[in-house]
Amino acid sequence: MKIGILGGGQLGRMLIQSALKYDDEFYTLDPDENCSCANISHFTKGNFKDYETVLNFGKDKEVLSIEIEHVNADALSELEKVGIKVIPNANIIKIIQQKILQKEFYKNNNIPSPNFQIVQNKDEINFPFPFVQKLNTGGYDGKGVQIIKNEQDLDQFWDEPSVLEKLVDIDKELSIIIAKNERGEIKTFPITEMVADPILNLLDFNICPADISVEIQNEVESIAHQFISAAHSSGLFAIEFFLDKAGKVWVNETAPRLHNSGHQSQEGNANSQFEQYYRTLVNAPLADTDSFGFSGMLNLIGAENYTGEVFYEGLDQVMKMPKTYIHLYGKKTTKPGRKMGHINVLAETREDLIEKLILIKSLIKVISI
Amino acid sequence: MKIGILGGGQLGRMLIQSALKYDDEFYTLDPDENCSCANISHFTKGNFKDYETVLNFGKDKEVLSIEIEHVNADALSELEKVGIKVIPNANIIKIIQQKILQKEFYKNNNIPSPNFQIVQNKDEINFPFPFVQKLNTGGYDGKGVQIIKNEQDLDQFWDEPSVLEKLVDIDKELSIIIAKNERGEIKTFPITEMVADPILNLLDFNICPADISVEIQNEVESIAHQFISAAHSSGLFAIEFFLDKAGKVWVNETAPRLHNSGHQSQEGNANSQFEQYYRTLVNAPLADTDSFGFSGMLNLIGAENYTGEVFYEGLDQVMKMPKTYIHLYGKKTTKPGRKMGHINVLAETREDLIEKLILIKSLIKVISI
Repeated sequence: MKIGILGGGQLGRMLIQSALKYDDEFYTLDPDENCSCANISHFTKGNFKDYETVLNFGKDKEVLSIEIEHVNADALSELEKVGIKVIPNANIIKIIQQKILQKEFYKNNNIPSPNFQIVQNKDEINFPFPFVQKLNTGGYDGKGVQIIKNEQDLDQFWDEPSVLEKLVDIDKELSIIIAKNERGEIKTFPITEMVADPILNLLDFNICPADISVEIQNEVESIAHQFISAAHSSGLFAIEFFLDKAGKVWVNETAPRLHNSGHQSQEGNANSQFEQYYRTLVNAPLADTDSFGFSGMLNLIGAENYTGEVFYEGLDQVMKMPKTYIHLYGKKTTKPGRKMGHINVLAETREDLIEKLILIKSLIKVISI
Repeated sequence: MKIGILGGGQLGRMLIQSALKYDDEFYTLDPDENCSCANISHFTKGNFKDYETVLNFGKDKEVLSIEIEHVNADALSELEKVGIKVIPNANIIKIIQQKILQKEFYKNNNIPSPNFQIVQNKDEINFPFPFVQKLNTGGYDGKGVQIIKNEQDLDQFWDEPSVLEKLVDIDKELSIIIAKNERGEIKTFPITEMVADPILNLLDFNICPADISVEIQNEVESIAHQFISAAHSSGLFAIEFFLDKAGKVWVNETAPRLHNSGHQSQEGNANSQFEQYYRTLVNAPLADTDSFGFSGMLNLIGAENYTGEVFYEGLDQVMKMPKTYIHLYGKKTTKPGRKMGHINVLAETREDLIEKLILIKSLIKVISI
């Protein structure tokens, strides 16, 4: 099958890597000719935010998908009209692209999400402190999100269309990955716990399965099913949750694609999120997602003060560790905060897993030569 | 690292697929521009049996390897002389390429292998019936090997330099994969049992771990270590054994590369033969090879009477089965006997594994559209 992917980053790379088990042809579109997918797919250099570029790229594909949601969704709508299969569909991509539409979608579909106010500008603010400001568009990897604690913080408020959201008293951050194919089959992955880095606001550790009660587990799964039923789209979605200190879960946000919170599924589950996503694209039976014990993931992020040709300090020591899997993204240069790769770990207990993740974090550093 | 591979078939493809987790650049050389590696590596069309072609291909690589042993080994010797790292080294490739040298190598190194006579032509035969004739060169996938049962069969004797080998009364065929890096680390994979198809003489099922006593296991492992020590080469080797009905093991032959008998390691072991081979190429610490329960493999071979654009009948049903992993080789056309892919299976017991393999074999057929 001729499969087109908007975006040529690491998510696309790992999708293509996984799908090399099958006989499909992958085509990628990305503005960066050195992107992670360039050498392993039929590559087109171009801007996936541009209407004409996306239209031209997509028109001869059998199925078109994304590995980043900030693409030209109008072009995808147009391609759907002329009969190209777009997964996930253009409508749900549009909804998720805009935080305002996303919040309204949750509200209209009775999906629990923190209370909010929509504002077009600063003057419209009528919401109790402290709150979270989420820009309507342009947010990614924690960018476009800030906490406004009090009147004084309003000085740094971004004067743009935004969602103001009640600040949740977070106990844990959870994520679930759910997939649906065109046959209507639906499957979830075990719920993952995300432990965030307070400074970079990028995922730091994943731990799977999450340490939560069966009730919370059931609730998260039920909300995920509610979401995918309301979305009316096949594809794979990562839904991020807050579990608050009162034991209630709230949807934080949803990605209509492969997600960092599912990376440990590469070795931790009977099949990975990449295999499952592939199966939604070609409408194959969905794969089993059972966990093999405990699995975890650690992001490899470009260290502060290093920019240039990447060097992974400590890699050799990590490669000596059993049940430890290094995944680099084929990026030649590092810069502070750049996602360069990740490391998956398997363990028999949660304690062993966390110990191993902490040890690895102390051993490895992403620097430049 | 710039890694060159002679050959662009499925072994190379799965090596590259596995190594996409790292940041190396793969270069492949193959006469067929539609080969399995063409679209996923820097591809050079050319004959790997040709001296000048191999020399030109290899001279700017940091490490050079093979995914088929029938390459121009003289060119590899020359490249070694000018400082290119060749894994496995040219000398052991030369020995393995020629059945006569290979047999003498076993004899000289006290590696048990069936009794034999070397003949340059038919007139020199002085060996009791029945025996196996193995052509000195040109054998592959069971070609170039035949059984001569009696005087009459001599009519079909190939009048070429050959090894005549005592016919072993086979109880089981076994295989072990062993790897060594330049640091001197050595690791084996669990021993695999191979169940052959009597007609095509291509591997049919693999079952891992093999159902053998600890004594046999120890002996196979010890012979594998003896081999790799005598070979004086880093790299990965698959050593095939006969276990005879008296309980004695004999080396049948060795491949100085990735091997069909190790395919189930992709999902069946903590790390696959592809990961291990990669690690020998870049001289990284060797990976752990523990089994996750029982694993098996079934080859997908082009069915009789079908030649043309491939279609995998029954694929959808197989994709519904849990712990079942399809690996296709990116070959667009099938012909009778062509290796098109394989299917790996995991199970908790040997009985379940065999049952699943037999079921899958009954469901799937490699035909043309």
